[in-house]
Amino acid sequence: MPLVRISMMSGKSEGFGKKVGEIVYRAMVDTINVPEKDHFQIITEHDAVGLIYDPSYLDISRTDDIICIQITLNEGRSVAMKKAFYKAVADRLHADLGVRKEDVLISLVEVMKENWSFGHGVAQYAD
Amino acid sequence: MPLVRISMMSGKSEGFGKKVGEIVYRAMVDTINVPEKDHFQIITEHDAVGLIYDPSYLDISRTDDIICIQITLNEGRSVAMKKAFYKAVADRLHADLGVRKEDVLISLVEVMKENWSFGHGVAQYAD
Amino acid sequence: MPLVRISMMSGKSEGFGKKVGEIVYRAMVDTINVPEKDHFQIITEHDAVGLIYDPSYLDISRTDDIICIQITLNEGRSVAMKKAFYKAVADRLHADLGVRKEDVLISLVEVMKENWSFGHGVAQYAD
Repeated sequence: MPLVRISMMSGKSEGFGKKVGEIVYRAMVDTINVPEKDHFQIITEHDAVGLIYDPSYLDISRTDDIICIQITLNEGRSVAMKKAFYKAVADRLHADLGVRKEDVLISLVEVMKENWSFGHGVAQYAD
Repeated sequence: MPLVRISMMSGKSEGFGKKVGEIVYRAMVDTINVPEKDHFQIITEHDAVGLIYDPSYLDISRTDDIICIQITLNEGRSVAMKKAFYKAVADRLHADLGVRKEDVLISLVEVMKENWSFGHGVAQYAD
Repeated sequence: MPLVRISMMSGKSEGFGKKVGEIVYRAMVDTINVPEKDHFQIITEHDAVGLIYDPSYLDISRTDDIICIQITLNEGRSVAMKKAFYKAVADRLHADLGVRKEDVLISLVEVMKENWSFGHGVAQYAD
């Protein structure tokens, strides 16, 4: 169900974006009850005029290595679960790929369960 | 009002994306009361590292011909209307363009009617 | 907090997109209480088959200079504030960059305050 959009600067090494995506997917499975295999993502690269960020908002020091992750998912996760998810994503991106935790921006957009069709023109979650 | 984002793999024949978009638009008019001419879409192509999908989630067999359709629209459509919309999109993409119904992924994001301005800096739906 | 996606046709002069983004950011600060420095945007250019618009929906005459602005932000702004924001964006894009006000399309997507992490894997707005 989650549809994940990941945006980063161009020039990353081959396979980097896909690894980021897999870490985000795995963190969703581990912390916010996303089912195994529910893995759908759009990963885009942008140049400096296409990806704009503030380098110090909220006193967090960001760089061009910023990774912007926006996820559309079903409503209903608790605040505690969301916090666990954010932490898992930042911790793992740092541990596995050397991403600075300051450079991890996450945005969630929640929708109702009948708002998805995963194929065949059927609302698989509606009933 | 709907703002439609359509994402697919690159390499499709010329005009394919636009035809997909027209089918989605017409299905919205026919099934979920979207007004005629309310046709605004962003259609992007991605390579294999930019468009990630699971080939079997929910036991639906997907291929690189996957079409990911995310629509921001006003809240208030019933579940029955949403189901009719999903079915119309998948059926017509299959009938008109030969798209496999398994390859049609749809995500709806609902907003309030005052959340749009269609020009002139005015909230046309607010009042 | 707002994550802004700006889409326009390709071929604009260098720096145009960034200027559009700065105007949108400044209008958010001035009209809908977005904090200073809260400036995060993804700006993309598209060709004519990638950016689809109706040239007369709601009797508003649009051209290829259309600018499509979609903003994810926290819920809670009043209708009056949203109206002031739309007006500020269209007025300033016209005054500063010569954009036709008819060509300014705005879409807001509202989320809860715990739906953001701005770095460090922490939900900065949750508490």
